[in-house]
Amino acid sequence: MEAKFLSLEGVEGVGKTTNLKFIAEYLTQAGISVVTTREPGGTPIAEKIRGLLLDHNEEVLANESELLLMFAARAQHLQQVIKPALAAGHWVVCDRFTDASYAYQGGGRAFGVEDIAWLEGFVQKGLTPDKTILLDLQVELGLKRAASRSTPDRFESEQKVFFENVRAVYLQRAKAEPERFCVVDASHTVEQVQQHIATYLDELLNHG
Amino acid sequence: MEAKFLSLEGVEGVGKTTNLKFIAEYLTQAGISVVTTREPGGTPIAEKIRGLLLDHNEEVLANESELLLMFAARAQHLQQVIKPALAAGHWVVCDRFTDASYAYQGGGRAFGVEDIAWLEGFVQKGLTPDKTILLDLQVELGLKRAASRSTPDRFESEQKVFFENVRAVYLQRAKAEPERFCVVDASHTVEQVQQHIATYLDELLNHG
Repeated sequence: MEAKFLSLEGVEGVGKTTNLKFIAEYLTQAGISVVTTREPGGTPIAEKIRGLLLDHNEEVLANESELLLMFAARAQHLQQVIKPALAAGHWVVCDRFTDASYAYQGGGRAFGVEDIAWLEGFVQKGLTPDKTILLDLQVELGLKRAASRSTPDRFESEQKVFFENVRAVYLQRAKAEPERFCVVDASHTVEQVQQHIATYLDELLNHG
Repeated sequence: MEAKFLSLEGVEGVGKTTNLKFIAEYLTQAGISVVTTREPGGTPIAEKIRGLLLDHNEEVLANESELLLMFAARAQHLQQVIKPALAAGHWVVCDRFTDASYAYQGGGRAFGVEDIAWLEGFVQKGLTPDKTILLDLQVELGLKRAASRSTPDRFESEQKVFFENVRAVYLQRAKAEPERFCVVDASHTVEQVQQHIATYLDELLNHG
């Protein structure tokens, strides 16, 4: 079976960290060699870029800088981690990928789809996740969960309407590409969510 | 007289630092309020991006990341420094600007002009330097001068052919836009170079 590139998406507080770990363990138990990684980040340079993006800086980060930094980190991540891992036959499970750019910078910051698509083509040259699991949750619930666990980063400090727009774009993209997306209702219990994910992964392992 | 945006360009060792200072002092003596700045950099965030671009990193920086980081820094620099300075009536004198992206990432790294032009449009939305002084020098002479003063950064560590391509693009651009460019022969003495620049600035101050 050819190595697959999976991404996990969703707004703050949907349980990406817990479920990324679950996915990696589930695949490992099925005999798959898995590389887990995250965006923005995944390499030393890309993690430094992540710091510029997520930290509260002494100056306002320009929206254009934000979008370009996201794709600069992605180019680095692809070159150093994702492409070599796939070439070596490992599956890659990534906490967020380009759908997040469409959702956060497109939906959240109102950049045009065509601008993001240009950058996607420039950096990815056609390489996109084979499958994407979208953890979907009402914005209010997610923000409440996220707020209870840590000091909000630069994105988490945005207003509710920002995340409503992010969620709307995620759902639009899932609807537009049903073959690639698996939408999981993250308002359910962890057990229910992971049962849904396990069923999806079984299907993927058995039928590709 | 409306505030002008001047850029100073050239490969390593042509004397940009010395002549940037000279230009700023010359304009100040003519009663102009001047802001001097540099690229990549010019703001705290953009200077951090400069570090990622110029330092020798623990990993190879992807060419796409390099180009996107240049424009991410530029977007930040424009928003935080250049546009506010011009709006407040200050002249801006910048050590390198977008011509350097065409020269280094286009000439040096062989990115297509259309890719760089897309990023220029996305970030600058038509804002370009009013005038550009290109300090031109044989590559060998420049590299010899640069090597004598400090440990080479990531760009300065490139091979001679890289800088030949950088210089060729600078000269092409100067030829294509003679109204904007003033090409100064940097192989002359500092006095001769500064006499040339002073004459050019006088013309600019008197006739725009």
